[in-house]
Amino acid sequence: MNDTGNNVNTRRVHELRVDVEEARSVTVAILRMLGASSEEAAQQAELLTEADLRGHPSHGLQRLPVLVERIRNGVVRFGVPTIDWVTAAALKVDGAQGLGPAVAFHAIREIAKRAKQTGVAVGLISDSNHLGMLAPYVQAIAESGQIGIAMTTSEPLVHPYGGRRALIGTNPLAIGIPATPHPFVLDMATSEVSMGRILAHVHRAEPIPLGWALDRNGDATTDPRAAAGGALSPFGAAKGYGLGLAIELLVAVLTQSAVGTSVVGTLDTDQRCNKGDVFICVDPAALRLDDVAATISPFLDEIRSEPSQRPERPASVPGDRSLERRTHALADGVSVPEGLWHEIQAIHQELLDAV
Amino acid sequence: MNDTGNNVNTRRVHELRVDVEEARSVTVAILRMLGASSEEAAQQAELLTEADLRGHPSHGLQRLPVLVERIRNGVVRFGVPTIDWVTAAALKVDGAQGLGPAVAFHAIREIAKRAKQTGVAVGLISDSNHLGMLAPYVQAIAESGQIGIAMTTSEPLVHPYGGRRALIGTNPLAIGIPATPHPFVLDMATSEVSMGRILAHVHRAEPIPLGWALDRNGDATTDPRAAAGGALSPFGAAKGYGLGLAIELLVAVLTQSAVGTSVVGTLDTDQRCNKGDVFICVDPAALRLDDVAATISPFLDEIRSEPSQRPERPASVPGDRSLERRTHALADGVSVPEGLWHEIQAIHQELLDAV
Repeated sequence: MNDTGNNVNTRRVHELRVDVEEARSVTVAILRMLGASSEEAAQQAELLTEADLRGHPSHGLQRLPVLVERIRNGVVRFGVPTIDWVTAAALKVDGAQGLGPAVAFHAIREIAKRAKQTGVAVGLISDSNHLGMLAPYVQAIAESGQIGIAMTTSEPLVHPYGGRRALIGTNPLAIGIPATPHPFVLDMATSEVSMGRILAHVHRAEPIPLGWALDRNGDATTDPRAAAGGALSPFGAAKGYGLGLAIELLVAVLTQSAVGTSVVGTLDTDQRCNKGDVFICVDPAALRLDDVAATISPFLDEIRSEPSQRPERPASVPGDRSLERRTHALADGVSVPEGLWHEIQAIHQELLDAV
Repeated sequence: MNDTGNNVNTRRVHELRVDVEEARSVTVAILRMLGASSEEAAQQAELLTEADLRGHPSHGLQRLPVLVERIRNGVVRFGVPTIDWVTAAALKVDGAQGLGPAVAFHAIREIAKRAKQTGVAVGLISDSNHLGMLAPYVQAIAESGQIGIAMTTSEPLVHPYGGRRALIGTNPLAIGIPATPHPFVLDMATSEVSMGRILAHVHRAEPIPLGWALDRNGDATTDPRAAAGGALSPFGAAKGYGLGLAIELLVAVLTQSAVGTSVVGTLDTDQRCNKGDVFICVDPAALRLDDVAATISPFLDEIRSEPSQRPERPASVPGDRSLERRTHALADGVSVPEGLWHEIQAIHQELLDAV
């Protein structure tokens, strides 16, 4: 595995404020020179920069050097996925090793259109690459007036509740529903915290709370370095574990992709990715439903105006804080470790020099 | 609200071991005399006794006196639900105030059949009554070789993460997937614990752990009586709250049923129930999937054989312990509070006398 992406994680680094348009255009330029179409490059750049904008750097530009390496190693390819309507409401998508966002948006475009007739349509994706954050996908679906649900799997990072070893992916679930002033967007991994958050504690040499992770022997630890070599804990004890496992099974079965410890290619630089992705679009108009946003928005506003248990942490609606961070980052730039930014610029220059 | 059902909860009572067939036949007899068809009565009795068999008395025979009162008050009725295929894959079901299990199994029969053509089919139920435990529904779907997903809502019992008041239902999610030696069955409420578990601490005069619930002022409490008058906490902090809220919104929107504090009729004895239920059936054969059980069963067995963090609590697969309890209860009888059993017998006798 190429360790250049990790250099930015293993020492305290100065954080730069980078204008998001600059970050996006450099990313697009790199991907274009590596062979991506302009649409593929734009979609991938969008997903990476959206993660940084929303304050989730583990899914942001930090992944670009790994992605570049994967392209150079031939485990990420470009082109149009093969689609097959298995039934009127179910689309199988063979990603042909394509970029995760490009394959996913291709599938979403198809199932969103189909859901207008069938009310509900599912996209079952295999042989595609890392999706990045799920929020932007279901948000796009919700902004178009439909309900979107997304699930995906990853390499095993999470131990079963009561177990000692990482056997299950971080298996996020995202749900987007039309609402005003913006869609309801839930995007949650089923681990207590991300590996990125463990690594952030490594960099700051700060202990982690008990309950976040186990060490490589399967014992509870407060040492972030021990945790990084061990297993993340599921969120919410037995229930969160059950949900993460159910997503692991559903995605594996529905997309005929790998399960458990046989999943590879979501973190490494040289293995063909064998996880799966499931997308669901529901069309309210086709189901003759009442106005969705009008149904739920007053209730969401009621939650937003609730008195809070602690003044410093008001009750909030999932996705609201992420959008606030996004608004600030659009104005102020995204925070990028200096070493990572230099690495991306070096990749860019190297490609320019080779033209 | 009729308080006879609560008598068994407000004093220490002797628990009887009741043969499950006897419990089932008395329940059927009561419902038949109140006007249920033999099929409706059998389905409702099945759901109540299954909950006791699996060790979830809060959804078991304890609910029968409340149900009897609801029938007598005219808020539960009998008959065949009205169904409407809105699209090829989506069925709207008007429960016409029917018994929850009868309406649900009617819907499941329809969507399971349809999923054989469409691959995926959804049943969107409104104006039906309390479903009881969700596990038996998705287990039945999985035993027939399909994948089943179920979601439902309840009266507001759960506070938003960071909030102080109950605004959200306990909103369980259940997922059943074919596997050997038995289906994978996840059935989880999105509250940390059930109100039944809080009441069990009231009866034993034992404090509850911090984190289970808030008192009526929205402050954390270890007093189970204060918790019973307050709000349950969501499981898994912000993520569990987000999931419970998403289920609240999805079910309300898809079934055009009530949301938040306007949901009534799942606990009381006199209000027409206005929550909704969503069922999804996925047919693996129609989607030309590999053998589902063969795909996931080895992985589930791998989890079952994992070394555990604590010998007294091995890593387990969701549903396994529930089925173990069921096996024991089938042999030894279900545990029923003496007062509740006498109450049920009195209802039975009263109805026999009135014939």
